[in-house]
Amino acid sequence: MNTFITGVAGFVGCNLAETLLKRGHRVAGFDNLCRGQLLNLDPVIDNPNFTFKKVDLADLDSYREALIRLHERHPISVIWHMAANSDIPAGVTDVRVDLRDTFMTTLNTLEVMKHLNIRTLTFASTSAVYGDLQGIKLIEDIGPLFPISNYGAMKLASEAIISAAVESFLERAYIFRFPNVIGTPATHGALLDFVHKLNNTPNNLMVLGDGTQQKPYLHVDELIDAMIYICEHATERLNYFNIGADDDGVTVKFMAEQMVATVSPGATITYGEGNKGWVGDVPRFSYSIEKLRRLGWKPTLGSAEAVRLAVRQIAAQEVSK
Amino acid sequence: MNTFITGVAGFVGCNLAETLLKRGHRVAGFDNLCRGQLLNLDPVIDNPNFTFKKVDLADLDSYREALIRLHERHPISVIWHMAANSDIPAGVTDVRVDLRDTFMTTLNTLEVMKHLNIRTLTFASTSAVYGDLQGIKLIEDIGPLFPISNYGAMKLASEAIISAAVESFLERAYIFRFPNVIGTPATHGALLDFVHKLNNTPNNLMVLGDGTQQKPYLHVDELIDAMIYICEHATERLNYFNIGADDDGVTVKFMAEQMVATVSPGATITYGEGNKGWVGDVPRFSYSIEKLRRLGWKPTLGSAEAVRLAVRQIAAQEVSK
Repeated sequence: MNTFITGVAGFVGCNLAETLLKRGHRVAGFDNLCRGQLLNLDPVIDNPNFTFKKVDLADLDSYREALIRLHERHPISVIWHMAANSDIPAGVTDVRVDLRDTFMTTLNTLEVMKHLNIRTLTFASTSAVYGDLQGIKLIEDIGPLFPISNYGAMKLASEAIISAAVESFLERAYIFRFPNVIGTPATHGALLDFVHKLNNTPNNLMVLGDGTQQKPYLHVDELIDAMIYICEHATERLNYFNIGADDDGVTVKFMAEQMVATVSPGATITYGEGNKGWVGDVPRFSYSIEKLRRLGWKPTLGSAEAVRLAVRQIAAQEVSK
Repeated sequence: MNTFITGVAGFVGCNLAETLLKRGHRVAGFDNLCRGQLLNLDPVIDNPNFTFKKVDLADLDSYREALIRLHERHPISVIWHMAANSDIPAGVTDVRVDLRDTFMTTLNTLEVMKHLNIRTLTFASTSAVYGDLQGIKLIEDIGPLFPISNYGAMKLASEAIISAAVESFLERAYIFRFPNVIGTPATHGALLDFVHKLNNTPNNLMVLGDGTQQKPYLHVDELIDAMIYICEHATERLNYFNIGADDDGVTVKFMAEQMVATVSPGATITYGEGNKGWVGDVPRFSYSIEKLRRLGWKPTLGSAEAVRLAVRQIAAQEVSK
């Protein structure tokens, strides 16, 4: 099977490429290398079944042209659209960041798929589409959907335009809504931030917010496994699933303590105020993966175990640099 | 109060301008005059409290510049964002129509509001954000939201980006979700289409679809009344309400028969096949206005009465041309 991945040099994209190659797919991917890095493709770049090209997916003409050429050589049967702005605070400052890198990449992906008659799309959505529903259990069919970040808004906009495309030309779409995913290669997020801070000031870790913010965390290996499982088992034309840890998550305090213990034992931790990391960050939520469990998949790691594993991996990643 | 209306030369915009002027507001409005028409502004254009300028709201630079000048003379306290692509089938053919005229006009409106520190926005959304929920009663908090037209998708995207703006800088937002609205000046829609067809072939009316498609219809006068009522009575930061007729609606067959009886009595009516008018049209739905009733407003006309009134008005409009 010839699979195409957008954002292939990003955190999720590069892990996905590696897994699909191991499973025997031929994999091609584009990335504008703004947040994604070539370094992330080290494990796959020499694989003869892997093709990479630097393309800005927000530029429809270059995207279309590059994909046409790829498609001529190896007809693509499915597109995994993982490209997005992953820097939520950047999108709070300037709405055009999420517009361009999260929404326009989706719109252009659909345009190109229509042009090339590629009919199956999978999409990396987010728990942020739910906004802040004040602790209500987040099941997939809940409403209303009022995201509180431009990131969440442009992911919801992407879901909406994919849904309209299913009505008009897409044969099958898979929407995966996941909360914070951790692991390596870490390109952003609290854990990486902690390592960097501890490298600068080994005796003290300053944490944004009061540390009580609590979220479920999923390890990237499990995310990839769940996404592939859903593609193999869900049978609707439009399939949408929460993917996440099967618990209420862990606090920022827990993560900070784990990282200190691993990287700089004995360092003190200083907390800020408030339990929101930034405008548009949802402080606490309860995530349902019942629908996914009913389909037959559940994670093997809880949030705490996922954090412990990712802490070790990210610490090792930063030491090796 | 100085009120600014986007899409002021459109069907809803021009009726809104007229009502707000009568209520003592100073009203200014922009329109790109693509679908809106100067003719629609005849009742207000000579009013000294009304200002019109042709501006393309999808072009951020011209929009910002024109609104800055307006705001300097008469500081704007509230923006009514009514501009959108109103031609749903056009948006099915080319997603860029709804992207540009429905979504980018919203995004740009928010950008300009942020720049000028204007903190109150009202937004004309649509029942199309609900997609096709298979006859389930459409209450505001229902999910999932999977629109089946690009029009609905770009309205949902607009709601989402407004919701994120409420988290970051908007003080108050009002989202009005309404289904088909009828009345004059009619610029599009089934009733106008029927008159045009009957003018061409007075003995026969060809109807798209089998005529069983059923929807609630709201008269534009009632829509305006409801929107203003909500602004005066709803007190959340983000207020969202369905506005519609308080019944299950009337069929296309009923509307065709009413128009034939008024314009060309005795003409035969020929129906097509299927109960969807076009890709992305929701064939039948049940619309809840319970939330609006609880706020204290209900329509005085049912769908059938609204259709009868609009039929007379649209027939008269077309005769007078």
